[in-house]
Amino acid sequence: MSVLEDALAGHRVVVSLPAGGIADWIAVAEVLVQEGLRAWAWPADQLEVLGELTSLYGRRAHIGVAGVLSDEQLAAAAAAGARFWLSPLAVDADRAVPLPYLAGALTPNEVAAAARTREAAVLVTPADALGTSYARTLPVLVPEVEIVPWGRLERYQCEMWLEAGASAVVVQDVVVRPELSDGVNVIDEVGRRAASFGQLVATNTP
Amino acid sequence: MSVLEDALAGHRVVVSLPAGGIADWIAVAEVLVQEGLRAWAWPADQLEVLGELTSLYGRRAHIGVAGVLSDEQLAAAAAAGARFWLSPLAVDADRAVPLPYLAGALTPNEVAAAARTREAAVLVTPADALGTSYARTLPVLVPEVEIVPWGRLERYQCEMWLEAGASAVVVQDVVVRPELSDGVNVIDEVGRRAASFGQLVATNTP
Amino acid sequence: MSVLEDALAGHRVVVSLPAGGIADWIAVAEVLVQEGLRAWAWPADQLEVLGELTSLYGRRAHIGVAGVLSDEQLAAAAAAGARFWLSPLAVDADRAVPLPYLAGALTPNEVAAAARTREAAVLVTPADALGTSYARTLPVLVPEVEIVPWGRLERYQCEMWLEAGASAVVVQDVVVRPELSDGVNVIDEVGRRAASFGQLVATNTP
Repeated sequence: MSVLEDALAGHRVVVSLPAGGIADWIAVAEVLVQEGLRAWAWPADQLEVLGELTSLYGRRAHIGVAGVLSDEQLAAAAAAGARFWLSPLAVDADRAVPLPYLAGALTPNEVAAAARTREAAVLVTPADALGTSYARTLPVLVPEVEIVPWGRLERYQCEMWLEAGASAVVVQDVVVRPELSDGVNVIDEVGRRAASFGQLVATNTP
Repeated sequence: MSVLEDALAGHRVVVSLPAGGIADWIAVAEVLVQEGLRAWAWPADQLEVLGELTSLYGRRAHIGVAGVLSDEQLAAAAAAGARFWLSPLAVDADRAVPLPYLAGALTPNEVAAAARTREAAVLVTPADALGTSYARTLPVLVPEVEIVPWGRLERYQCEMWLEAGASAVVVQDVVVRPELSDGVNVIDEVGRRAASFGQLVATNTP
Repeated sequence: MSVLEDALAGHRVVVSLPAGGIADWIAVAEVLVQEGLRAWAWPADQLEVLGELTSLYGRRAHIGVAGVLSDEQLAAAAAAGARFWLSPLAVDADRAVPLPYLAGALTPNEVAAAARTREAAVLVTPADALGTSYARTLPVLVPEVEIVPWGRLERYQCEMWLEAGASAVVVQDVVVRPELSDGVNVIDEVGRRAASFGQLVATNTP
């Protein structure tokens, strides 16, 4: 089994929940499940809720953690039922990580170097930083690397990445947004946004 | 003779042909020659046509290959008459390469590191990823490095790079486009686009 | 005292003067002081004026140098009264630098690596290359790193970076612009632009 399968268990669309957390997270989780978005990456700064989340939704969703985490935090995440870790930064080769994980890179040379160092899919973070056409350019430049873009990707951008050969996409702050003000994640709105990405899951599930 | 001269033979505008190839490549090649675009980089996935291309156009055009190529592919490209290789990624210093080549980097530190590692011009790939103003910013940051941007560069962007001190430009998928649908490379259209870049060649030829 | 304090002395908004210099630099310096912009980075290609600048304004402004400088140039800058150096590129760890300095990186992994190599704030250069949202994304990815973005940053972008946790911002070619044509830095215009950034200083001074 590849690292990618080990980490994402075949899911091709992962919803990364916003840093800072979401007030009404149970309602949001319910909507995501209903709309077929069943792979979630929980933010590093909300680990104290993770155990409750996995006990409520661990059977209906594939739940991991995302962000910069210390060894202690990773151990706590694993104990709380996390199934994978998305690291936005490279991870030292000799670091003992208690979860299957993917690590991030950005430029073509960073992505190629990451794939040379470790036989695993590479996260492209932040995937929206190098422009929309990077979705088509990068896979050509690193043809043998499994790529998983992670960023503020609208649905059409996810489609571009997947059509260009990306193994999966991690959607940050688009379906569920940072709650910097009230009403950001009104459930009907989250449902509408989730439905659009749910179609993407349906289209891209083998 | 510098690596740059060795590879590009004084050409300052190189047309990189699209991955996936072009159906009517002889007509396209003819138009490029007529419009003064006489340096071409052939895509890595179309090497089987390269021998025919160089035997037909090798005297009228300076023809190389572009993309990620294995040692076997490079040997085949050299045998088929390629004169240079454009690698979008860094190339291991101890790799034996049978053609004069330029290798790619993106960020200022990557470009500076590439120039430190190897006394040669550095490709900036993908040159359109860091915004239009990068054409003016990068040359100031790496003042002693010969820079060759490579990407989806419109003519005004090529002008910006050349005016800011770039040694040459490699134009990808703008003059000749990926044939994802019919009619992408209608010859009249290619001619019109080539003419615009041909003026750039005329202006920038010593 | 941290490297950051040592270099910037508590200033959170630094004006980086354009390469190529400014014809009427005394009038410009006067306006910057009046509007409360009292930290300046002088361009590497105008070192011959630096001594005069520091003798006229060294008490009213905190003056350093910015750009790629050789050891000889750094020694000359220090002798001419420069108080800090902003290097857009990484600096070799074993290089003897006669001024407190900050060095540049761009991608999340470059920034993280720079902070691991040297306990100091990291310049993000060019800070405008990875899109506006990078101001919010990067600080989350390198949570323990002091970040100082440097680039063509409009005031709202400076605010975004500072709100997201940046330690300071270096504004290039926005308040005072490259004099590629006449009338670029008409004093009234510079004053108007400086006033806007001066408010930013007032808001962000402890």
